[in-house]
Amino acid sequence: MLGNFGYCNPTRLYFGDNSLKYLNRELKKYGPNILLAYGGGSIKKNGIYDEVMQILEMNDKKVFEVAGVMSNPTVHKLYEGCEVAKNNDIDLILAVGGGSVCDYAKAVSVSAFCDDDPWEKYYVRQERLSNPVIPVGCILTMVGTGSEMNGGSVITHPEQKLKIGHVFGDEVMPRFSILNPTYTLTIPQYQMVAGFFDIMSHICEQYFSGEDDNTTDYISEGLMKSLIHSTRIAAKDPQDYEARSNIMWTATWALNTLLSRGKTTDWEVHMIGQAVGAVTNATHGMTLAAVSLPYYRAIMKDGLAKFRRFAVNVWDVDPAGKSDEEIAKAGLAALEDWMKEIGVVMNLTDLGVTEEMFDDIADGTFLLGGGYRKLTRDEVIAILKESM
Amino acid sequence: MLGNFGYCNPTRLYFGDNSLKYLNRELKKYGPNILLAYGGGSIKKNGIYDEVMQILEMNDKKVFEVAGVMSNPTVHKLYEGCEVAKNNDIDLILAVGGGSVCDYAKAVSVSAFCDDDPWEKYYVRQERLSNPVIPVGCILTMVGTGSEMNGGSVITHPEQKLKIGHVFGDEVMPRFSILNPTYTLTIPQYQMVAGFFDIMSHICEQYFSGEDDNTTDYISEGLMKSLIHSTRIAAKDPQDYEARSNIMWTATWALNTLLSRGKTTDWEVHMIGQAVGAVTNATHGMTLAAVSLPYYRAIMKDGLAKFRRFAVNVWDVDPAGKSDEEIAKAGLAALEDWMKEIGVVMNLTDLGVTEEMFDDIADGTFLLGGGYRKLTRDEVIAILKESM
Repeated sequence: MLGNFGYCNPTRLYFGDNSLKYLNRELKKYGPNILLAYGGGSIKKNGIYDEVMQILEMNDKKVFEVAGVMSNPTVHKLYEGCEVAKNNDIDLILAVGGGSVCDYAKAVSVSAFCDDDPWEKYYVRQERLSNPVIPVGCILTMVGTGSEMNGGSVITHPEQKLKIGHVFGDEVMPRFSILNPTYTLTIPQYQMVAGFFDIMSHICEQYFSGEDDNTTDYISEGLMKSLIHSTRIAAKDPQDYEARSNIMWTATWALNTLLSRGKTTDWEVHMIGQAVGAVTNATHGMTLAAVSLPYYRAIMKDGLAKFRRFAVNVWDVDPAGKSDEEIAKAGLAALEDWMKEIGVVMNLTDLGVTEEMFDDIADGTFLLGGGYRKLTRDEVIAILKESM
Repeated sequence: MLGNFGYCNPTRLYFGDNSLKYLNRELKKYGPNILLAYGGGSIKKNGIYDEVMQILEMNDKKVFEVAGVMSNPTVHKLYEGCEVAKNNDIDLILAVGGGSVCDYAKAVSVSAFCDDDPWEKYYVRQERLSNPVIPVGCILTMVGTGSEMNGGSVITHPEQKLKIGHVFGDEVMPRFSILNPTYTLTIPQYQMVAGFFDIMSHICEQYFSGEDDNTTDYISEGLMKSLIHSTRIAAKDPQDYEARSNIMWTATWALNTLLSRGKTTDWEVHMIGQAVGAVTNATHGMTLAAVSLPYYRAIMKDGLAKFRRFAVNVWDVDPAGKSDEEIAKAGLAALEDWMKEIGVVMNLTDLGVTEEMFDDIADGTFLLGGGYRKLTRDEVIAILKESM
């Protein structure tokens, strides 16, 4: 069943190994002051920084930089970006990096002119946007989050041990994103594979949730099959452009709002995973990988028909002679095999989690309901134990 | 392989049985003068006209009407709409109807301020848009063309026996479209089923063309499986809201530019089908149905691997013990079975085509290349003969 919904995604994408040149076209639409946000400096080593700066200079832009955006961008880093944006009449925030940098750029976009503490207002209290935003553009260098074509932004408060996302509307979505698969080829294997699982998790969160058996489910299955096919190739040969470009495109559609239209979604894996990230600072995709199998095995019976469908349609499990539960379990076993094949972290212990952290993680897990079953706190703790 | 491409689709959609109320929100964005375009008057019988007029009045709009937009909108009707638009300072063209009315609204949008004959400039010579456009909004009452979320517009010149489409860019895409599946429930079975095949044809045209084996192919397969599932239900019970709503959503994604990203496409079935439509004025989806099987059987060997994949992934043909050609043929046989099951017209004779029309049809078939094989004129004639 397909519920009622609205859909609008105005982000303009330029995809391919020649896509950076279109930055020239986009820059003409904005004023002179650019806030360039990027991470730990890998873009300086691989030459992307120089290429981008050259184009900014050719377009007579004045560039203000916020470097060192971390993989879990903190609220303190957010405040720093807001100061730069406010004090320099910024016309465009240009994120060069992965999902963390894109998320950060959107956070600065909505926060710079917020008359309250943006962490409290938009992340803790989840209030609606009520102030002007600064346009954001992205040049993506890492694949996974889908942040290049959605309004999502996740920020971490290390002292409060909280990592919270806000999904803003289309006015906050990047005005444009440049998706050049060659920029993703130099990412370390660990980060690459974490991104692969993040993509799978985005699709699964929306697939295993809310109203079932609509067009969206079929699109999700197509995206999962594409992802499985290409990640098997890329995990062995990260330089395979064809595989990496297909993964990049799959990642965008896995989380650009299409897959959630007409469905309710509870994002429980992300809620637990983000809580793990807040406590450990572990890589986002790996926190999802570590808790996914115990989580799905815990809710399997609440969505048995869908887990059966997942097994047959996505993993080609032969249903002959098996009960629905056996088929569903075989599907999750196939998911586990694929996770091991591409090489994700399979447990929380490897991410530095100890049992003493369970209370903080459970406290930081915000359960929304709307999926097959809203977990209790005890069930979250049980899943964490199973994930060790 | 995924080629380089750009993507932007800013159309805002409101989907569901409550979606008309959002017209209020959209109307506030435009000035007072509305050009209301609609077809033969069915919207007056089923009450949609009154509902829309009430909302227009409540928003203090001045309404100018162009009624009687035909299923193959003519160039003469286009000129009529341009006069109304130019003389009344129209702020928004509101199309209420199926794909033909949406196509027509876009044609008026680009033609009203064209300083040349728009038929010659945009349709015959396929020149780039070079004049201001009038914003278009759509209230969809029939499903199939995808015109509600793309820049395509097909116009017919009856005297020249030509039916030609122009795919305009995102500046011509509808600013908004209201998709209410209940509005589609009163369409006659013949038109409903023709729409179903139009959707399948849109997916197949892009699937069987250009670069193969990328993410887009997997999305196409998901959409086809969803379509087959829901059309089997809807053909028996047209009042099944769930099936009809899923078909409506599938139709939008079948032709909103996503499925052609990174691919080259030749649209040969549409080129032949449109030429048939220009000569016979037959229903668009049925012209495609009548020529599809002979066409695909004629080019099957040129894209054998893809036809094999189509059979296995879309129709669940068991490949065991069969040659690739046998598998591919079994896939097309399954397509044929589905076509008969939903009840489309299976040959050109039933559409009133006679052998004397073959020359005109072949003359009006514009072959672009870029697919598996560019047909010769003789091959087009051979396909027409096979389709009788």
